[in-house]
Amino acid sequence: MSTSTTYEKLPLQPLFDTIEELKPKFIERLQKAIAIPSVSSDESLRPKVVEMANFLVDELKTLGFTDIQLKELGTQPPPVQDANLQLPPIVLGRFGNDPAKKTVLVYGHYDVQPALKDDGWKTEPFTMHYDKEKEILYGRGSTDDKGPVVGWLNVIEAHNKLGWELPVNLVVCFEGMEESGSLGLDELVAKEAQNYFKKVDQVTISDNYWLGTTKPVLTYGLRGCNYYQIIIEGPGADLHSGIFGGIIAEPMTDLIKVMSTLVDGSGKILIPGVYDMVAPLTDKEDQLYDSIDFSVEELNAASGSQTSLHDNKKDILKHRWRFPSLSLHGIEGAFSGAGAKTVIPAKVVGKFSIRTVPDIESKKLDDLVFQHITSEFKKLNSPNKFKVELIHDGNYWVSDPFNDSFTAAAKATQDVWNVVPDFTREGGSIPITLTFEKELGVDVLLLPMGRGDDGAHSINEKLDVSNYINGCKTLGGYLHYYGKA
Amino acid sequence: MSTSTTYEKLPLQPLFDTIEELKPKFIERLQKAIAIPSVSSDESLRPKVVEMANFLVDELKTLGFTDIQLKELGTQPPPVQDANLQLPPIVLGRFGNDPAKKTVLVYGHYDVQPALKDDGWKTEPFTMHYDKEKEILYGRGSTDDKGPVVGWLNVIEAHNKLGWELPVNLVVCFEGMEESGSLGLDELVAKEAQNYFKKVDQVTISDNYWLGTTKPVLTYGLRGCNYYQIIIEGPGADLHSGIFGGIIAEPMTDLIKVMSTLVDGSGKILIPGVYDMVAPLTDKEDQLYDSIDFSVEELNAASGSQTSLHDNKKDILKHRWRFPSLSLHGIEGAFSGAGAKTVIPAKVVGKFSIRTVPDIESKKLDDLVFQHITSEFKKLNSPNKFKVELIHDGNYWVSDPFNDSFTAAAKATQDVWNVVPDFTREGGSIPITLTFEKELGVDVLLLPMGRGDDGAHSINEKLDVSNYINGCKTLGGYLHYYGKA
Repeated sequence: MSTSTTYEKLPLQPLFDTIEELKPKFIERLQKAIAIPSVSSDESLRPKVVEMANFLVDELKTLGFTDIQLKELGTQPPPVQDANLQLPPIVLGRFGNDPAKKTVLVYGHYDVQPALKDDGWKTEPFTMHYDKEKEILYGRGSTDDKGPVVGWLNVIEAHNKLGWELPVNLVVCFEGMEESGSLGLDELVAKEAQNYFKKVDQVTISDNYWLGTTKPVLTYGLRGCNYYQIIIEGPGADLHSGIFGGIIAEPMTDLIKVMSTLVDGSGKILIPGVYDMVAPLTDKEDQLYDSIDFSVEELNAASGSQTSLHDNKKDILKHRWRFPSLSLHGIEGAFSGAGAKTVIPAKVVGKFSIRTVPDIESKKLDDLVFQHITSEFKKLNSPNKFKVELIHDGNYWVSDPFNDSFTAAAKATQDVWNVVPDFTREGGSIPITLTFEKELGVDVLLLPMGRGDDGAHSINEKLDVSNYINGCKTLGGYLHYYGKA
Repeated sequence: MSTSTTYEKLPLQPLFDTIEELKPKFIERLQKAIAIPSVSSDESLRPKVVEMANFLVDELKTLGFTDIQLKELGTQPPPVQDANLQLPPIVLGRFGNDPAKKTVLVYGHYDVQPALKDDGWKTEPFTMHYDKEKEILYGRGSTDDKGPVVGWLNVIEAHNKLGWELPVNLVVCFEGMEESGSLGLDELVAKEAQNYFKKVDQVTISDNYWLGTTKPVLTYGLRGCNYYQIIIEGPGADLHSGIFGGIIAEPMTDLIKVMSTLVDGSGKILIPGVYDMVAPLTDKEDQLYDSIDFSVEELNAASGSQTSLHDNKKDILKHRWRFPSLSLHGIEGAFSGAGAKTVIPAKVVGKFSIRTVPDIESKKLDDLVFQHITSEFKKLNSPNKFKVELIHDGNYWVSDPFNDSFTAAAKATQDVWNVVPDFTREGGSIPITLTFEKELGVDVLLLPMGRGDDGAHSINEKLDVSNYINGCKTLGGYLHYYGKA
């Protein structure tokens, strides 16, 4: 995949031209979506999240979708201020129902991260700002994930205008709680797997980003994450270090000792057995990294420092995507404020997580972690109480970047951007990917629209007009290539 | 000092009888003092702190003190909400000015810790509750430090009632910011050393507690405290462990490694050279610990756990009082909340302190700490930025428990309690002790009134009536024995 590929081009130019022609309307559609502050984490804005669901329903109706449903998910579980707070509905809809065609489910979310002008935004976050000089659209949700969501609608509109039939049956699944833990989504997907989603052949998600700022990517892997805590408990209450220092076994001393045995300064995990589970790197896989557009300088720019553990692109990408890592996040219960406090904390909870990759088995990893930490604690001969536990886990995901769906997306990308996309993985997790794969038993494709510098969860979130419009072309082209595959 | 001592008793029974007789009045005086919520850390209660100063001035006037002065200390330095907030005044007064007599300065503080009924108090904290069955006085400030402060006034009142002359000249110095860092006190003591405090021969402080609950003590030593922080800084902002885990050098990894080299699970300090500075334990000193009333069980009761590092009384007391200790207090900048957060903290600050004892030189200790930590950080070969610094230090203090003042206090204690007091040290620091010793060039005696379970900074603070009344007798008797010494 590192060289340019040849393939039989489909006659998609009329579709691309129509999308260009509709550009002003598409920008207006995104503007309307951004104007609804559908912040899922803010209970007071819950009516706006519901308003956004209704906005999508109206759009789907206008475009000719059928079987449109608002799936209610019940009340939001605690902690909530309003015990009767309803979860926002999941919006389902179909476009086409032809048994001769393949069915593609597209997932997106219509809720957004919080945003206040005072956070440092240059313009009002919920009033789309179109910078016509730079050709950039600013606004909360522009890239995450309203741009991609309305992008799918734009594709339908372009087909309608052209009078073209859609090459596949499309099922949309738009949720309103993605930024708040996707509450209720797993249950809904499981429930609808044999119902609304019964004939789905493929799931396509546009909710991640290019690795950099210039080259399109398709994403075929995500690391998993097992998050642990070590709890060490000594005295009945926090004590004064003047009175008790030197005469009782301090939980912090034990915890720091144990935490120091987990990872070394080069990032190597010190828990025996973890690397034995990691799939060996094949030559073929190694070569995948050669052509990818990335550099140490890009990492340094992203981290705002010169602290890279590796001096070349390939090692960085491999350690981000296909090797495990262990991060020490912090300690609950210890003194964490500014200044000086002479406390002996009574109970401290050390937090760390391991990013997992093929072929690490989650349960076996837990066993190795528990064994190692228990053994290290025992070495201390401490009278303190000790416990280590998993807080949550989520498996890694890797797909086949050579399957029909990826191949179709690669062709569409090359049609639109004139370049072979990079095939990337991501270091973080997108749990819904695994849910769809598991519950529907089909392949998942991550087909990003925005760039690596869009600031998805940050201030001044943006989507370049070229990414938005070419993104719509790519989504549309993808459906055609996939329909023919 | 471990056996009962014989000495020439002074005819103090009339004084002790008079104090008994005045008991209802003395309890009423303490009740009035407790009723003024003189919380120095609460800016909104600052007028109450000043009211408490004026209450003392009125009492001093009534009792016949002279040269009464309210020493203003100016505005309180930041951080404050009210930039014009005035520090509470220091109350000075004299009783007697006879060149033939020795002059004793008594220090106390009239401010208190915060207290709210909702914190878990059984009765209103600022309404003294007299439990007549248990003979206990409950209320904020009862033992810390309003009981001892009005105790000195009670001694004068008893002398006045008897028509007795005071055996010494008394100077009182009552401050109103002790619970908030004694702001302004050091400067005042330095300034008045050759003025108001010029003829002072001895400083006596009643602001600590018995070691346990049954045996009176005199305190001749305190540990010092050097508080340090290790600052490790990597990326420009907090990062996501999914994206950056495994590819950058994480500051937490470095910090935990360095902190793990400071102290071991048995409480032993691992920084080379620290123990070389500790004064050797002599046989004579070792014997001092034999008779002291304490046990492993008492430590366990106090810590609310079975986590003692030592299995016998003597080792516990030595490690509390005369050996250094190192406590890891916490980490600023890391994740410290409940639950799971997949953050790589950008800048973390590890906090720890060392309790110091004779003959540790503070500056030399700093050097050893800085050298050790710098060397441990260098071993990591980390690209992160590193700094170690002292936040604050305060020297240890040890007096001669055989000097005139201690001997006088021991005789008075035996007169009142019929037992030889334990001679104790404390693990914590009382910085004003060192200030008086240094600025006035005289001995300091710590002569506690309350018991180890009074809950000085806790809810349901109390002072037993027997400690209050016998405490007044002890203070009075002490002045007589010291006057004759």
